[in-house]
Amino acid sequence: MMTQSSVDPAVEYVTVHHDDILNGLQDFLRIPSISTDSVYKAEVERAAAFVADELKRLGFENVAVMPTAGHPVVFGEWLKAGPDRLTVMVYAHYDVQPVDDPDNLWKSSPFEPVIREGRLYARGVADDKMGVWGNLKALEALLEADGELPVNVKVIFEGEEESGSPSMKPFIEANQELLAADLLIISDGGHAPTQPVLAYSARGIVAAEVKVTGPEADFHSGQGGGIVQNPLHVAARIIASFHDEKGNLAIDGAYEGMIPLTDEERTYFLERQEHYLEEDRAMYGGFKVWGDPAYTVHERSTARPTLDVVGMYGGYQDEGYKTIIPAKAGFKVTMRLAPGQVPADIRQKLIDHIMGFDSETCPVSVEPSSIEGWPVLLLHDGPVIDALKAAYRMNWDAPTKRLRHGGSVPLIGMFQQVLNMDVMTLPMTVGGLIHAPNEWVEVESIFTSINIAIHFYRGLAAIEKP
Amino acid sequence: MMTQSSVDPAVEYVTVHHDDILNGLQDFLRIPSISTDSVYKAEVERAAAFVADELKRLGFENVAVMPTAGHPVVFGEWLKAGPDRLTVMVYAHYDVQPVDDPDNLWKSSPFEPVIREGRLYARGVADDKMGVWGNLKALEALLEADGELPVNVKVIFEGEEESGSPSMKPFIEANQELLAADLLIISDGGHAPTQPVLAYSARGIVAAEVKVTGPEADFHSGQGGGIVQNPLHVAARIIASFHDEKGNLAIDGAYEGMIPLTDEERTYFLERQEHYLEEDRAMYGGFKVWGDPAYTVHERSTARPTLDVVGMYGGYQDEGYKTIIPAKAGFKVTMRLAPGQVPADIRQKLIDHIMGFDSETCPVSVEPSSIEGWPVLLLHDGPVIDALKAAYRMNWDAPTKRLRHGGSVPLIGMFQQVLNMDVMTLPMTVGGLIHAPNEWVEVESIFTSINIAIHFYRGLAAIEKP
Repeated sequence: MMTQSSVDPAVEYVTVHHDDILNGLQDFLRIPSISTDSVYKAEVERAAAFVADELKRLGFENVAVMPTAGHPVVFGEWLKAGPDRLTVMVYAHYDVQPVDDPDNLWKSSPFEPVIREGRLYARGVADDKMGVWGNLKALEALLEADGELPVNVKVIFEGEEESGSPSMKPFIEANQELLAADLLIISDGGHAPTQPVLAYSARGIVAAEVKVTGPEADFHSGQGGGIVQNPLHVAARIIASFHDEKGNLAIDGAYEGMIPLTDEERTYFLERQEHYLEEDRAMYGGFKVWGDPAYTVHERSTARPTLDVVGMYGGYQDEGYKTIIPAKAGFKVTMRLAPGQVPADIRQKLIDHIMGFDSETCPVSVEPSSIEGWPVLLLHDGPVIDALKAAYRMNWDAPTKRLRHGGSVPLIGMFQQVLNMDVMTLPMTVGGLIHAPNEWVEVESIFTSINIAIHFYRGLAAIEKP
Repeated sequence: MMTQSSVDPAVEYVTVHHDDILNGLQDFLRIPSISTDSVYKAEVERAAAFVADELKRLGFENVAVMPTAGHPVVFGEWLKAGPDRLTVMVYAHYDVQPVDDPDNLWKSSPFEPVIREGRLYARGVADDKMGVWGNLKALEALLEADGELPVNVKVIFEGEEESGSPSMKPFIEANQELLAADLLIISDGGHAPTQPVLAYSARGIVAAEVKVTGPEADFHSGQGGGIVQNPLHVAARIIASFHDEKGNLAIDGAYEGMIPLTDEERTYFLERQEHYLEEDRAMYGGFKVWGDPAYTVHERSTARPTLDVVGMYGGYQDEGYKTIIPAKAGFKVTMRLAPGQVPADIRQKLIDHIMGFDSETCPVSVEPSSIEGWPVLLLHDGPVIDALKAAYRMNWDAPTKRLRHGGSVPLIGMFQQVLNMDVMTLPMTVGGLIHAPNEWVEVESIFTSINIAIHFYRGLAAIEKP
């Protein structure tokens, strides 16, 4: 293995091509590949083509923009490292969250990347276009420097992660041979290298939309008040019933199946609680800590199931008042699931709970979303994790920090369910405000991340194929 | 008093001028005088000028579009009936509800009146442009037929009723001499003459907007779920707390001050319950009866205070899902008050209740609306009511039906508070779907109503001035 003092030719390539790497990323960020809104379908396809062209340029084979029932998957492979070397599959997603910014909080256009004070601002830069770009550029540097890669590499870049990956399960099931590998490397989410980090857990997700039907048309609130049930009131009762006074879930069986933190983990996270909170605030924005103090903060936000109403509507929302009992109301709800829980089970418990509010005067209906993410516990020791830690040591003289994610990466669970593959995460960039206005990454971290990926890929060369 | 067989020359005038009356009404309806939305300010002023021009044409004196802090009041008077005759003041409002029609339910443009199968469809036709127009045309017919009016008449047409009449109290207080009269005649709301009706009660109204503040920006629901409180959940808890399981108000003191129905009224309304429900459905749209069966339907909808959330917002409302804990949520709430209750008192109880949910993690704020309507019990016997019943008998051989309104006419309470004046209602037209898409009146009822008003005004001539 190389020492820190010598200059790795691949790292040297990254230094020389600094501007090209940054400009290419910005071109990628200018494509508004919003997967949840069908208006942007063509832009999602444009982003897929952009990524596929990069892979072809690198000399990857079998590069394909593979159609699914939803948005396409970009696939490519470089398998010339030989049969004794590991075959790894790299995952990231090229789609992004919607902009939805009624209060005009974006300081610059979300799809016109801008650098201000060492940060690059754009929708999707942290989640997850750097996940795609950072791996592409690490692989490019290795190929340009050495003429080859240290391991066999397959890449799979998804276009539906922000929509809950509805098409990926059938895609994986239909392409098991193509996707076969020894290890899945996930680069998703904005967390990462100001220090060595090992993220080894993510929560699952299910979602549903609830509709409550009131009178035939918006009804005069004077004549109807007292005899016409208000669907907004029913929707509010449903939402209010989801949690107890302490903030724990009050849905029957909502905690079923969860694997709690070990005592060792609980102690580890509790000792570093303030540090994690600072990180969350820096990355996601300010907030005051809330929830049942019987559980540690990290446990509540990563290792226990939670429920959030992500949007609600009903009645008159413009200036002034309209004195009505609205004809309908509704909301969208997502649940995050703890490792050990089964999405279909928990979703059914959620639906059953909601349907308990159904009545003749205000019928309630639930439309389950195709969004489904299995919770996961990932690889967190052994030679692959040792290779990651070694790559980290090329940059930092510090122990690797352990981290559980509260968010969801639906694909991981699918891979685990269908392909029975080892999975680990390779973080890309330091960034924040993902899913929110003014999403950003530190420009310097773009290059640090690529160099760490280079060292990590090199480290995998020494690992025996299982 | 004239008999039904003779032809009243004023009624004859209405018959002859059928088309003019209908065309003029449609011109009036084409003006989108929406008072709650400042975008329509100029249109509200245009409607005021339209009405003032009509009054001048009739020979009314001191006709004025009188400015207020909000929209203007149209005033005019005809005081040549002599000092022994009553002086009445006629009230209606020329402003209308907003269109707010996200589902495109209007079958024709709301401000392009259309007649289909005997009904005239337009925003404001029932509430309350026919209140203005019907009185104007009855007075015109009397003046054209007789050269004079049977009583002294003042008219006051408001432009802010659908905004809760915020400017009217200072206006009335500042113009007590100008507005002095023996009787206030209210023509507001779509209820009316397929049969003789006496509406003698209306509920009061107060309103407020509630805002709940969550994290600094929309927060990633994965990383925040369990440690960041969701303002939509808090808003829902507030709304869910307003009512008990039976649908009664659960706000401390919410029933304070109310005058319950008399046993006689309760029996009267209970015997006719199905009839009233049919009427409500025909006029306001279909619904299933809801509420505490311990009280009769009519009592719940007209004689007890109620609360309705009229609109709510928060989070992502477009296609698909955005996995966030929203930065804020809010809702608008109105309360209807029973006769006997004091608006400022009940509003304060509402605010106190809501502020009980304020917290450091999700601050709650309440902005009370300037909307304030006193509940009222009106004139329901004596010579004026006898004159109304006699006018009804010119058209129908049936007893006058008694009615309490669940809606609010804020001005009445102000007149009662400030001027200590007798008040009664003179209904105009049969119509429905007020405050909703496809608001309508029966075309035939336009003319029936005008003729009844003519007979009623004639009947007032015989009443001695108090």
